[in-house]
Amino acid sequence: MTGEPMTGEPMTGEAAPEGKEEAGDSALRSHDLFPLFHPESIAVIGASSDPQKIGGRTFRYIKDNGFAGKVYPINPRFEEVQGVPTVASLAELPGPADLVFVIVPAAGVVAAVEACATHKARTVVIFSSGFAEMNEEGAALQTRIGDIARESGMRVLGPNCMGVMNVPSGLWGTFTASFDIRPPLPGRVGLISQSGAFGIYAYQLARERGLGLQLWATTGNEVDVDVADCLNFFARDEGTDVLVAYIEGCRDKDKLVLALETARERRKPVVILKVGRSEVGALAASSHTASLVGSDGVYDSIFRQYGAHRAETIDELVDVAYACSQGRYPAGNKVGLVTVSGGVGVLMADAADRCGLDVSEMPAEAQARLKEKIPFASARNPVDTTAQILNDLSLLRENLEVLLSLGGYDAVVFFLSSVGLNPTMMEALIEPLKEMRQKYPDAPVVLAGRFTESLEEQLNQEGFLILADPTRAVFAIGALARFQRNFSAPAGSRRLPDIPHGLPRLPAGPLSEVAAKRLLADAGIPAAGERLTATPEEAAAAAEALGFPVVLKIVSPDIAHKSEIGGVLLDVNSAGAAREGFSAMMERAREAAPEATLEGVSVAKQIAGGVETILGVQRDPVFGPVVMFGLGGIFVEVLGDVALRVAPFGEDEARAMIREVKGFPLLDGARGRPKADVDALAKALSRLSLFAAANADTLETLDINPFVVLPEGKGALALDALIVTRTDD
Amino acid sequence: MTGEPMTGEPMTGEAAPEGKEEAGDSALRSHDLFPLFHPESIAVIGASSDPQKIGGRTFRYIKDNGFAGKVYPINPRFEEVQGVPTVASLAELPGPADLVFVIVPAAGVVAAVEACATHKARTVVIFSSGFAEMNEEGAALQTRIGDIARESGMRVLGPNCMGVMNVPSGLWGTFTASFDIRPPLPGRVGLISQSGAFGIYAYQLARERGLGLQLWATTGNEVDVDVADCLNFFARDEGTDVLVAYIEGCRDKDKLVLALETARERRKPVVILKVGRSEVGALAASSHTASLVGSDGVYDSIFRQYGAHRAETIDELVDVAYACSQGRYPAGNKVGLVTVSGGVGVLMADAADRCGLDVSEMPAEAQARLKEKIPFASARNPVDTTAQILNDLSLLRENLEVLLSLGGYDAVVFFLSSVGLNPTMMEALIEPLKEMRQKYPDAPVVLAGRFTESLEEQLNQEGFLILADPTRAVFAIGALARFQRNFSAPAGSRRLPDIPHGLPRLPAGPLSEVAAKRLLADAGIPAAGERLTATPEEAAAAAEALGFPVVLKIVSPDIAHKSEIGGVLLDVNSAGAAREGFSAMMERAREAAPEATLEGVSVAKQIAGGVETILGVQRDPVFGPVVMFGLGGIFVEVLGDVALRVAPFGEDEARAMIREVKGFPLLDGARGRPKADVDALAKALSRLSLFAAANADTLETLDINPFVVLPEGKGALALDALIVTRTDD
Repeated sequence: MTGEPMTGEPMTGEAAPEGKEEAGDSALRSHDLFPLFHPESIAVIGASSDPQKIGGRTFRYIKDNGFAGKVYPINPRFEEVQGVPTVASLAELPGPADLVFVIVPAAGVVAAVEACATHKARTVVIFSSGFAEMNEEGAALQTRIGDIARESGMRVLGPNCMGVMNVPSGLWGTFTASFDIRPPLPGRVGLISQSGAFGIYAYQLARERGLGLQLWATTGNEVDVDVADCLNFFARDEGTDVLVAYIEGCRDKDKLVLALETARERRKPVVILKVGRSEVGALAASSHTASLVGSDGVYDSIFRQYGAHRAETIDELVDVAYACSQGRYPAGNKVGLVTVSGGVGVLMADAADRCGLDVSEMPAEAQARLKEKIPFASARNPVDTTAQILNDLSLLRENLEVLLSLGGYDAVVFFLSSVGLNPTMMEALIEPLKEMRQKYPDAPVVLAGRFTESLEEQLNQEGFLILADPTRAVFAIGALARFQRNFSAPAGSRRLPDIPHGLPRLPAGPLSEVAAKRLLADAGIPAAGERLTATPEEAAAAAEALGFPVVLKIVSPDIAHKSEIGGVLLDVNSAGAAREGFSAMMERAREAAPEATLEGVSVAKQIAGGVETILGVQRDPVFGPVVMFGLGGIFVEVLGDVALRVAPFGEDEARAMIREVKGFPLLDGARGRPKADVDALAKALSRLSLFAAANADTLETLDINPFVVLPEGKGALALDALIVTRTDD
Repeated sequence: MTGEPMTGEPMTGEAAPEGKEEAGDSALRSHDLFPLFHPESIAVIGASSDPQKIGGRTFRYIKDNGFAGKVYPINPRFEEVQGVPTVASLAELPGPADLVFVIVPAAGVVAAVEACATHKARTVVIFSSGFAEMNEEGAALQTRIGDIARESGMRVLGPNCMGVMNVPSGLWGTFTASFDIRPPLPGRVGLISQSGAFGIYAYQLARERGLGLQLWATTGNEVDVDVADCLNFFARDEGTDVLVAYIEGCRDKDKLVLALETARERRKPVVILKVGRSEVGALAASSHTASLVGSDGVYDSIFRQYGAHRAETIDELVDVAYACSQGRYPAGNKVGLVTVSGGVGVLMADAADRCGLDVSEMPAEAQARLKEKIPFASARNPVDTTAQILNDLSLLRENLEVLLSLGGYDAVVFFLSSVGLNPTMMEALIEPLKEMRQKYPDAPVVLAGRFTESLEEQLNQEGFLILADPTRAVFAIGALARFQRNFSAPAGSRRLPDIPHGLPRLPAGPLSEVAAKRLLADAGIPAAGERLTATPEEAAAAAEALGFPVVLKIVSPDIAHKSEIGGVLLDVNSAGAAREGFSAMMERAREAAPEATLEGVSVAKQIAGGVETILGVQRDPVFGPVVMFGLGGIFVEVLGDVALRVAPFGEDEARAMIREVKGFPLLDGARGRPKADVDALAKALSRLSLFAAANADTLETLDINPFVVLPEGKGALALDALIVTRTDD
């Protein structure tokens, strides 16, 4: 496995071909992470002769595993390292190195990175720890490294990371001893992890599953290159089909969204383990990364919106990545379940129901054909072959054939219990299985149960997925079906909408309800017709003009919670009542808030009927303005039943958001109500997101509560609104 | 492994010692399943010389694995089978056999079972299939076997089952080839499965995990012995500590509840995989077992009530059984998390939060002590040791010691990534781990990550649990903590309450609302005061006497849904309005339902305030009357937010039931409401359950909607009630 001779031949040093990034995968060469993942020349600062040391093992890994480019140990004190002649400093290299590994103690890192910048190295990897994760001094060093990276345009991975691999190229740019135990397997998976330890662990689990890697990296403290950068690169990399990521937090929403959407457009599944779902978890995460990570619910909504699969456990992460690795996605949602144990059939049917797969019955003709062969079987779906199939293995082919042809299923899960531990029995199965795979190459087929390692490998190669636990096997098919649905949405359909020009801008300082609603109306979010009145007589006249009943409300930029001081009067049914109401309300406000500027009293037609909803905007430290939707009453406050979306988004996305809440049936005609005007609601939500995005710099929070959605075709109206602008702090 | 000589020595045949079942475990000998699981003499009808045939392999398994009792092959045609002299018929045995295996084709089974009954065999196992699971003819044969069992008192396991094992006794009473691959391991787990194939598969998974078995059985068609019988036996069996069950459905609620409660009282955890949660799953289950299995939600409530753990996957079933097998339960809820990867620490904290474990911070003193040793570590909890610990393994002992002593944690999960795949590193760990285990023997400690098989075995033996996936490791601790909480409830505290004498009985035929509420009031469920009036004048007088506002309702046993025909009038504010309301309502009812018997109009005080709830009773085909509780409005109808309990139950259980619904905060003072009178509600629910149980034979459904719960101390009242009695069909 020794690579090319390590002599100091002239470096190619040529610039990558020019071209527009989107023009094709070959244009990827111009991507600034290209030399990190596909270097042609590598320099190792701190290469050591001791192959057990970090600088020694890394150097050995790089030179001994078939990497075809140039590798230079940089060392002024020795003539050679591990048999390779050294170069005294970067300055003596024949040209700029694509990739430099910096393997020196923390105190020496800044100098080394400066040398890299002077040398015009294209990318740098820093293993060393002792930076922001340790103390303030370390954080200052890290900031300096970031400055050098920005100023030089050189991309820096780390510090405090475990490096980078390009497995087919033989580039093992890392120092863990794990690879000596079992070398990496080349494949089509790109694995990216913020945590080094996790990156190694996930690699090992994938390796045990026979899952091959294309690219691998851990980003550590992310002084420059982050997980989203790598995902963007993987999404465009020709050799990478499946993207797997571990993340604790992401700092650039747009980069993350672009990566997810690029991957989706290219039919590359993205499987993500995002930790920190619970409050205690988020606390642990922020103490681990010492950075703001954003609201977990927002990640959830982004992953859903862009079709990434969020795994809840490491097992699930590896399961789904593995299931994707064969590149077969079910064309639809119909799953055929076959089992040698009726009970496990029931278990699989439960699992299919839980993940939204359709366990529809076999067509009568197909059932009849199975019944002919296995009289005891239940042939509905799940198909229970009983142990009969073990006595006559030809039935297995028969069964699969019926399901894939007459059955019309888009995927099949076949529970074979421990048949696969019995080598003679399974040997006899391989031929018929192979034959079925060739005849029906498209549908994913999972064999569930226990298999010997060699059988598992063989069946994998024949194009079958092997997952021991039948529930997990069904869930994996569920994930593949969701990917397929997301892949099918047109390219660009999930890109962010443009923010139109001319949207109203938030004024500085507090806004009254009337001003807030006027602003929202200008932004395309309708509010109930209302008039601002300054005297009891004006109030009475406005009420008569609008028609009874009306609602009176005090108007003041200084009173946020009007009903608490008696500043709201419902069911005003006559001009006299409006007149009296005006006076009473002004008096109460003057008493309760003597300092407040009172602009008067608003008079609005009281809206009857409709469904009360709540629209809101919160500012997330990472994602900026996030729009919240929920139903009024107990739904938001007691049940926490809300849907979130990062602003801005279009009306289709708003419709998906509306359908996400558990109370959606109330908008959809439940309990004998008329269907609500969901179109108007979706339009308002999308407009709100555009308004929030346009005012991202000044908007702190926004609440429209209630936003009443009238019956279909009748529209929707904000009855109250509260906007809080950001104060500098 | 050859057992005792198989000669036809006289059988002991003595009766099991007498004794009250509850007197002690030795009294278990009198249990009628004792000879099935602890036989002293076995006869095999259909023992074959061909060790690959079912009758041959079973016979070989029984005679060759150390079983110390007598074993007789019954065969009139041969002198010997597998070297053992045969006996021509059961009649020629020296005395009644404890256990007879019937291994003959379905057509010959009835005759063989009759011979067993004549012989006074104590228990019989029937492997043969071709009974109720096949067709009506088979079902008739099965019924006949059931009759023989009942008439003779002989207990019969099967048909269509895979037999019985007592592993420590060397009794392998089954025919699967699996045991030739890897022999069973003796241990303290009792495993019972309705499905034979599942029973074998679960056995194999347990075996791979190094989990030893005491007793094992599969019940198949359950003509006589069922899963609940076996669970009852396991709960009392001295050698069995952990009960594991696979069930599709159970036919005898009382037997199941008795088993669960007996196990709980004896601190034996019960882990159950109950399939058929979804509708499509339940359909598959009923086509598999051809029997009514009862509502899945009711099983859920029973498992929760009696402290059984319901696993959702086979993996989880084995995980939890394995975690229980070391017999260590956390004294409380506080879990300490340690990790070599900060990210996995976050993941574990998320998991702990999800399963209700407390990830509280380490005491300051403990944090300081850790920080001294590992300056980079986060010492809060999760404790992040970083890879530092791999350089200095003494830190591992230090860490564990701090957690278990100063930390005060009830359990620890330690994620060691793939350290356990590196034999030299792990060798060095075993001594300090062992030492810690001896010093702190009580708290469960899980080591998560990857280990070589031999290390896993060694660490298991030292009293550490090994679970690869860190999330699953934390969930297993969550399950152990729940068991401990359930074990701590006093013995008998969850036994069913007695049904008091003198509860009202349901009359035959339909009941009016007034009659229904009167009956419920007699049963201790209060209703709003109301008067039945026959004339407009009576209605007006009643309204004045009760105080305004009142509600008028038509009273007729023939009109179930009054509001649909305008038979309910709210907000009646004067005597005149009551008078007019009476007449209008009677007229409408006469028009809408000319055939209905009209008893008059009820006048009730209109109740203001309080929280509307719904109490109901449904008849489950297996569990009999099941009480439902939910909040009114959208909770039941849109969100399906209900809690179920099998009747009867006490007030404590009712309180648990009330707290189960998601809308509970509305009763508990959410949104500025006063706290509701939950005591009165719990009392009414318990009373309703007693009434339903007392009328189980005649009650079809019962709805109290709304049942208004007033503020604390003010009680709760049924405002409407509908009782439907059973019709014979």
